[in-house]
Amino acid sequence: MVMKIYGSVNSTETTRVFAALYEKGLPFEFVPVDMRAGEHKEDHFLALNPFGQVPAFEDGDLKLFESRAITRYIAHKYAEKGTPLVYEGKMMATVNVWTEVEARQFDPVASKLQRELVHRQMFGVAPDAAVFEENGTELTKVLDIYEARLSQSKYLGCDFFTVADLHHLPALTNLMGTPARTLFDARPKVSAWVANLMARPAWVKVLALRNQY
Amino acid sequence: MVMKIYGSVNSTETTRVFAALYEKGLPFEFVPVDMRAGEHKEDHFLALNPFGQVPAFEDGDLKLFESRAITRYIAHKYAEKGTPLVYEGKMMATVNVWTEVEARQFDPVASKLQRELVHRQMFGVAPDAAVFEENGTELTKVLDIYEARLSQSKYLGCDFFTVADLHHLPALTNLMGTPARTLFDARPKVSAWVANLMARPAWVKVLALRNQY
Repeated sequence: MVMKIYGSVNSTETTRVFAALYEKGLPFEFVPVDMRAGEHKEDHFLALNPFGQVPAFEDGDLKLFESRAITRYIAHKYAEKGTPLVYEGKMMATVNVWTEVEARQFDPVASKLQRELVHRQMFGVAPDAAVFEENGTELTKVLDIYEARLSQSKYLGCDFFTVADLHHLPALTNLMGTPARTLFDARPKVSAWVANLMARPAWVKVLALRNQY
Repeated sequence: MVMKIYGSVNSTETTRVFAALYEKGLPFEFVPVDMRAGEHKEDHFLALNPFGQVPAFEDGDLKLFESRAITRYIAHKYAEKGTPLVYEGKMMATVNVWTEVEARQFDPVASKLQRELVHRQMFGVAPDAAVFEENGTELTKVLDIYEARLSQSKYLGCDFFTVADLHHLPALTNLMGTPARTLFDARPKVSAWVANLMARPAWVKVLALRNQY
């Protein structure tokens, strides 16, 4: 039975899982959830994820939710397929540090900027200068640390592409289309890392899938 | 060389790591960081964690930060010692889901409540009713899902105590001393789970260590 992913192509959490599946070259079935109609709050979806958030995931009788737990499962379960996304021992310990950094330091500020910049852009409203400035300052602190890290290491977690980098892909793609892009462009290591990630064939496939919906 | 943990006994992130070390029965050296004096923003600490947050951790030449990455390292590296905190395969995939739930669903609201209730209590100021109500409502949603989960499973991740439960310990302990306790007490499975966690000998040792400082 092929893996199933329930979600939305417009959800960063959903596209994060697509990225892992394409990196691994694994076949999967995408089951779109109609979020505008509130389908993610209906009983049949709540049975998959009681928090009523996309994505949800099935591999045979195993049901998972939370995008970062799903990518971790795919990375370990299908370790021998496609791109290795996880490693062993001390190297993995450091990859886990930077995976936590994405979730705790990068994602909260990136999410606020996306809500402010991407959503307002969608509705033709200028971003709130104060919100952009406050979160831009926070993002700057994170990116300064990334710049230093990427001077020592080719990717965030180690010298290879891992889940630590992969988890950033959806937010990075959204922010590249906003004024926040300048914060990335101003940092040579960070901007080379972003360009490298954006060009990954697996991610190009995710964007192509997104454009089909 | 014994493992070193740099941090503060008043930091939930630091005590989370102590809990993992005591569950494993591993010797460690605690290096207090004087946060009131801003030591966590000084160069020697920033070399351990560029984000300037406690804790930081060393095991030989391996340097880690982010409490949840450190507990994961301890759990895997010292898998055969003390309490097993992680498992393999599908069981671990589900443990990882609930570990993400702690970080993404429980911790943000628990942190806001702790800031509001514990810190104000410390300074003898009544909590802001609106903040308590808003976050109390959010916490209620999470605890309703925990109650359902704990009706199917003895612990959050599986039928055994794992990192998914352990990561909750510091916030649970803080919230038990506040009016938010009623939200836990009102749910039988949740309140039995909390009582069970609070009574763990390893956690009792963490609280004893905290009282020494």
